Amino acid sequence: MSPFTGSAARTPAWHHLRVERADGVATVTLARPEKLNALTFGAYADLRDLLAELSRERAVRALVLAGEGRGFCSGGDVEEIIGATLALDAAGLLDFNRMTGQVVRAVREAPFPVIAALHGVAAGAGAVLALAADFRVADPTTRFAFLFTRVGLSGGDMGAAYLLPRVVGLGHATRLLMLGDPVPAAEAERIGLLTHLTAPGRADDTARELARRLAEGPALAQAQTKALLTAELDMPLPAAVELDAATQSLLMTTEDYKEFHAAFTAKRRPKWTGR
Amino acid sequence: MSPFTGSAARTPAWHHLRVERADGVATVTLARPEKLNALTFGAYADLRDLLAELSRERAVRALVLAGEGRGFCSGGDVEEIIGATLALDAAGLLDFNRMTGQVVRAVREAPFPVIAALHGVAAGAGAVLALAADFRVADPTTRFAFLFTRVGLSGGDMGAAYLLPRVVGLGHATRLLMLGDPVPAAEAERIGLLTHLTAPGRADDTARELARRLAEGPALAQAQTKALLTAELDMPLPAAVELDAATQSLLMTTEDYKEFHAAFTAKRRPKWTGR
Amino acid sequence: MSPFTGSAARTPAWHHLRVERADGVATVTLARPEKLNALTFGAYADLRDLLAELSRERAVRALVLAGEGRGFCSGGDVEEIIGATLALDAAGLLDFNRMTGQVVRAVREAPFPVIAALHGVAAGAGAVLALAADFRVADPTTRFAFLFTRVGLSGGDMGAAYLLPRVVGLGHATRLLMLGDPVPAAEAERIGLLTHLTAPGRADDTARELARRLAEGPALAQAQTKALLTAELDMPLPAAVELDAATQSLLMTTEDYKEFHAAFTAKRRPKWTGR
Repeated sequence: MSPFTGSAARTPAWHHLRVERADGVATVTLARPEKLNALTFGAYADLRDLLAELSRERAVRALVLAGEGRGFCSGGDVEEIIGATLALDAAGLLDFNRMTGQVVRAVREAPFPVIAALHGVAAGAGAVLALAADFRVADPTTRFAFLFTRVGLSGGDMGAAYLLPRVVGLGHATRLLMLGDPVPAAEAERIGLLTHLTAPGRADDTARELARRLAEGPALAQAQTKALLTAELDMPLPAAVELDAATQSLLMTTEDYKEFHAAFTAKRRPKWTGR
Repeated sequence: MSPFTGSAARTPAWHHLRVERADGVATVTLARPEKLNALTFGAYADLRDLLAELSRERAVRALVLAGEGRGFCSGGDVEEIIGATLALDAAGLLDFNRMTGQVVRAVREAPFPVIAALHGVAAGAGAVLALAADFRVADPTTRFAFLFTRVGLSGGDMGAAYLLPRVVGLGHATRLLMLGDPVPAAEAERIGLLTHLTAPGRADDTARELARRLAEGPALAQAQTKALLTAELDMPLPAAVELDAATQSLLMTTEDYKEFHAAFTAKRRPKWTGR
Repeated sequence: MSPFTGSAARTPAWHHLRVERADGVATVTLARPEKLNALTFGAYADLRDLLAELSRERAVRALVLAGEGRGFCSGGDVEEIIGATLALDAAGLLDFNRMTGQVVRAVREAPFPVIAALHGVAAGAGAVLALAADFRVADPTTRFAFLFTRVGLSGGDMGAAYLLPRVVGLGHATRLLMLGDPVPAAEAERIGLLTHLTAPGRADDTARELARRLAEGPALAQAQTKALLTAELDMPLPAAVELDAATQSLLMTTEDYKEFHAAFTAKRRPKWTGR
């Protein structure tokens, strides 16, 4: 959401993702359906760089992250990631694992809500991408699997050991990350892992409707809501209350806050400008 | 609970709230039913000052926060707060938003349990007041609405972005604070936002019974339970365990702890004195 | 899991617990059924020392904590703990309360998953021991009771005011610790306090099966999953992501990670060695 741009050029084409923009909504689609949208080095790098670029565009007010084909994302590709990392040295391994963490941080730090549209498998890194989103809109075919221990790795991948206990509690998070068992949609809803459960085949449409609603909303107020939720997980209460006071004081000087009052007085719907 | 008093006089009359005391229970009622108990600058200031005064009275052992009329509290008054803040300068806005945060801190730091007795609407600041309480006793007519984004403000108001993820998890908290949609009592119970769901019209009585039970309990042990719950949200485990050890050691020197043992041995109910 | 040993001898016999080892699983049984496995000073000290010793043994890959007879554990013995602490001075009280906290820290810091096998009563310190475990496998007769306030003490005992809000959320945790009411198995499952609910009488067997499954798993990956879950409760997101990156980079150099890839390629099950 920064209007401050320097010499850096915008990326002309994203080779590892499909990116569409319409009416303030960016839709990012993992589009490698023949491989259940398994992630590659290129896909991670594109996600990292794309989120950083979109975060500097005022025009983007909500982002939908979806998967083409039979499922959302099966995680890191067994050959192109797992096989390839076996050949990396220590510096290379750190470069790779830091990049995946940067994707999660970019999702959490983006100044717009990120909506994961889920169906079928959301496994490994795919499950963590969904977990990092602000909203998880899923149809009943969705099944999560934090299957890191199944490949000999730590369940704490890309921030999962930080995020999952804060979403579903430490008990469920331990069970999910330690065992890597599949989590069907109904269980995911019961433990608080979903924000919306849709009818079969309706996750993409529902996610898009939610994104459009958010894109028409008070963008700065929504961006600050997300920023405060993220920041206040890591703050003591007195600091959080002070951050809220400063943020709310700033937002009370905006056009959108005046517009609410004017609209309420005139008994009409507010027209949000995000300013 | 501090017996240390100096020159400060007790407030002779609270003009913006109804305050009653009986049997160790203070009942604070938002009593502006014609406006659905919408909060005013005066009501916030009275809540802040009243909670500070009551926190210095040993006689207060539980507090019920209730709303008169059709609902609990509809939040900040559209004219007397939202309209009025449009005319404030930066310093005035900070003064106001810090005051609202001080109310939430006063609820969390009070040395007695605070029980929100809920029915009908608990919206905006009314929802956060309830959220800050130790117990939320609600009847089925209750509906929460964290509607800050609906007025162009941040969902992180008065500590809500700190408290709500710690009560219902980050997923539900994001949905509730970002969208501001109403949360019916049944959903509130399902996601852990309620501590007690009562029969229709029974929230006030149930809250009062719970308050009386707590007022008859071991007051210092209960006060320390609350203080530790509040403090340990912001502490690493090793520090929390050390705080528990020091607190428990102190409580093991009290009359109430001796009384439990004597009563157990004599096969009678303990008589708690809070000492 | 440390292979680094010096002069310290292993304890030849545990007098206050029953300890068995088989196939990488240690089973620790509270075996004082005539007292509902009420804890004594000796039992606490043995739990603290045993967990430290087992944590240095590579051969232990999972631990089951069970109770013999009609229930899991009724908490601290009324005479041998509560009565006895009435005679302790300040230093003695701190020694005792620090020891109980050390047991909880030892459970959280053990490099293997700890599975509480629950039936009947899990009260007071028994409830907190179960809470500190990684998995809570319970049959329908199980009822928790964090009854510290019932004896005049703080609900924040042995880290309970830290752990419980992170498992079930602040609302339920406040209710459970402040009131000390019994929590039946069905409610415990609903609020996220259980990881597995079994058929009647099946908690011990289910816990053992889970332990065996974990013992056959990739031990180092599992140990790091637990360590990260524990550490990242107390870390901001950027630090957690960095810890994940370093941990995952290390695990990508292990035999187990190579073995996954080899097994996947050969379409066979991996044989984990924990290296």
